[in-house]
Amino acid sequence: MKPILVYQTDFTYKEGAVCAMYGVVKSVDRELEIIDGTHEIPKFDTWSASYRLYQSMKFWPKGTIFVSVVDPGVGTKRRASVALTSDGYTIVTPDNGSLTHVKHFMGIEAVREIDESINRLKGKSTEDVSVFHGRDLFSYCAARFASGIITYEQVGPEYSVDNIIMHTILEPIFYEGMARGIVEINDPNFGNLWTNFPLKDFLEAGFNFGDRLHVTIRHDGQVVFSQKLLFERSFGFAETGEPMIYNNELNRIGLAVNHGSFSEMYQIGHGPEWQVEISKQG
Amino acid sequence: MKPILVYQTDFTYKEGAVCAMYGVVKSVDRELEIIDGTHEIPKFDTWSASYRLYQSMKFWPKGTIFVSVVDPGVGTKRRASVALTSDGYTIVTPDNGSLTHVKHFMGIEAVREIDESINRLKGKSTEDVSVFHGRDLFSYCAARFASGIITYEQVGPEYSVDNIIMHTILEPIFYEGMARGIVEINDPNFGNLWTNFPLKDFLEAGFNFGDRLHVTIRHDGQVVFSQKLLFERSFGFAETGEPMIYNNELNRIGLAVNHGSFSEMYQIGHGPEWQVEISKQG
Amino acid sequence: MKPILVYQTDFTYKEGAVCAMYGVVKSVDRELEIIDGTHEIPKFDTWSASYRLYQSMKFWPKGTIFVSVVDPGVGTKRRASVALTSDGYTIVTPDNGSLTHVKHFMGIEAVREIDESINRLKGKSTEDVSVFHGRDLFSYCAARFASGIITYEQVGPEYSVDNIIMHTILEPIFYEGMARGIVEINDPNFGNLWTNFPLKDFLEAGFNFGDRLHVTIRHDGQVVFSQKLLFERSFGFAETGEPMIYNNELNRIGLAVNHGSFSEMYQIGHGPEWQVEISKQG
Repeated sequence: MKPILVYQTDFTYKEGAVCAMYGVVKSVDRELEIIDGTHEIPKFDTWSASYRLYQSMKFWPKGTIFVSVVDPGVGTKRRASVALTSDGYTIVTPDNGSLTHVKHFMGIEAVREIDESINRLKGKSTEDVSVFHGRDLFSYCAARFASGIITYEQVGPEYSVDNIIMHTILEPIFYEGMARGIVEINDPNFGNLWTNFPLKDFLEAGFNFGDRLHVTIRHDGQVVFSQKLLFERSFGFAETGEPMIYNNELNRIGLAVNHGSFSEMYQIGHGPEWQVEISKQG
Repeated sequence: MKPILVYQTDFTYKEGAVCAMYGVVKSVDRELEIIDGTHEIPKFDTWSASYRLYQSMKFWPKGTIFVSVVDPGVGTKRRASVALTSDGYTIVTPDNGSLTHVKHFMGIEAVREIDESINRLKGKSTEDVSVFHGRDLFSYCAARFASGIITYEQVGPEYSVDNIIMHTILEPIFYEGMARGIVEINDPNFGNLWTNFPLKDFLEAGFNFGDRLHVTIRHDGQVVFSQKLLFERSFGFAETGEPMIYNNELNRIGLAVNHGSFSEMYQIGHGPEWQVEISKQG
Repeated sequence: MKPILVYQTDFTYKEGAVCAMYGVVKSVDRELEIIDGTHEIPKFDTWSASYRLYQSMKFWPKGTIFVSVVDPGVGTKRRASVALTSDGYTIVTPDNGSLTHVKHFMGIEAVREIDESINRLKGKSTEDVSVFHGRDLFSYCAARFASGIITYEQVGPEYSVDNIIMHTILEPIFYEGMARGIVEINDPNFGNLWTNFPLKDFLEAGFNFGDRLHVTIRHDGQVVFSQKLLFERSFGFAETGEPMIYNNELNRIGLAVNHGSFSEMYQIGHGPEWQVEISKQG
């Protein structure tokens, strides 16, 4: 059975771009199965693209091909690439930071730059178009690879995994009864915030489910949140409307409001400038 | 042929949650077909979840499996369930009110609580996660059932249909030339409002297509709308921008503005506190 | 292999309408493959519906069936139609302007009006419903045609292609070193604006990639934008935040801001009242 193509982009479904891409895939091979990962990555946000791949990839069958197109540098010198991960997946993406988390946490075994002279759509008046590699390059190349028309070697020239463009992943610091890190990403729908504290390290630092812990959030050094919060396994352990600490779907420590939105209620964002400290003593 | 899985959640496509769920399904059985019902149920809104199942279910082939995950109580004592409807469908859902309309209007024949010791995803570092039953429990269990890996009996222990959690469905009242009820739900995109008046009862109360009828809407008892409106079969019978009464897609009486939004134009919501009265005399 | 059904509507995924439509298709023939083109066409906007078909259709395999339901006149006298395009596709749509671009640029070979007495869903209590042809008529008829249950002739009576409802497509004017036209449509996610200048004509008027060109935009005759902008192949040739002229994915001249939104930054819309002039001299 041919591998599934799972897509994620920042295109949204507001116009015909996704439709054109999927048409290219089906024109290469009618049998290929396409699944929407998401088309609502925030515009130009290669950090989120990277994180969303990391968040969902391991739940898919080995061999699945992820096509990730958050591509603010389309048509410039950034590489258009196909990466093989150490745990058996393929990612077709601009090499612009979108591979950060997968490389860091799972590992990348090999990466090749797509050869436009072979693996670019021809004959649809797209020769002069430089702004839609999602359609003309990534979808076309991914479909040909998924279909078995080209081998991995025929994608284009290999380059060193060491040259993959990486965002900086900040590591948290743990002491006994104290954790220091950042809000790494959000869950934009529910307004939950995800820190970079792995559950395992957090528990080892002496925190336990059921504890009430002091949480301080700083934005560029200024304290913007300081409260004692319940740490529990799920939202419903807190009162409705109450902020809390929980273990998120990726075993990272998160901040939530039961039946509410932490990020909206307290106007907290994410990124390296949003520092979080959790401690037993206030 | 294996049954289709139709999904509805309040997750949106803004991050990787839907993608992770679908990966679980495809990892259980690559052949299973997944269709998006909607991932834009309003957050935590089990009434809407229930209504949307009712709105669309009967149009699907018998045997179709609906996975409905609006689950504010995830990880707490609410039941995770699989229900068999009297008209031949399966619904995999938290038992939190999401089964209300289907139980009331179609009937539920049997319901079982998912046994986490058997039907929970294993081996992806999800053991400590309590906040994503959509991925770890509902998708995994639904896929195993759809695939034939488990029988219905193997879902988990049966419980009485009488114990299914129900929202209150308010019944309208009809007199000759008068209907009293509520705005039961909305059509959020077009801004149409759907009352709880069935067309049949409405016609029997003496209203006819082509009539101009007096509509009064009260919010917590205060009149917020009072106008004489045309009752017709479709929007285009009214002038552009004109409010009107129509028969909606489920044979319930609705309120709309031709080429406009009734809910926005008049700031009308839905729920038991929005009472509607339609009468022949003003 | 049976043709794919590609959908585009203005329904959004906010409630159960899309789900009901897809259920109808699968109930006609479980094997049919359904793909979301988009369900986010702006409400009632048949111009956008027409443009999005034009934007994406040619990338699909010949034989693909497009179901386009932007249908403000549902249930009134407008025709419900099935059109065969000159380049081998089928479009199932209300005949309300949605066929404009495809007829103008690709050509339509034949068009038939759907016979409701044959090709309308029966037996789901939908007989009295006039507001959801997307479900009861277009999906049902499209599925039957795709499945081979009916021939094209059995769709309903043919009518003259000359009678297809058309929007006006305004043609741009070119002089040496000067182009005059309109902002024809937008890319609502990225905020790019697409003029009606074909790249070929634009280059023949003496403009070249790398030029800095004077752009004037008028809204109903009033100048609302006037700047000298770089004309290049892709966004990344401009500085971050800098407005620019580029060749879009359909070989039309577009206006963009690198890493930004032209339409938001300068509050520019689209339509015949938004005139654009590009010239070598200011």
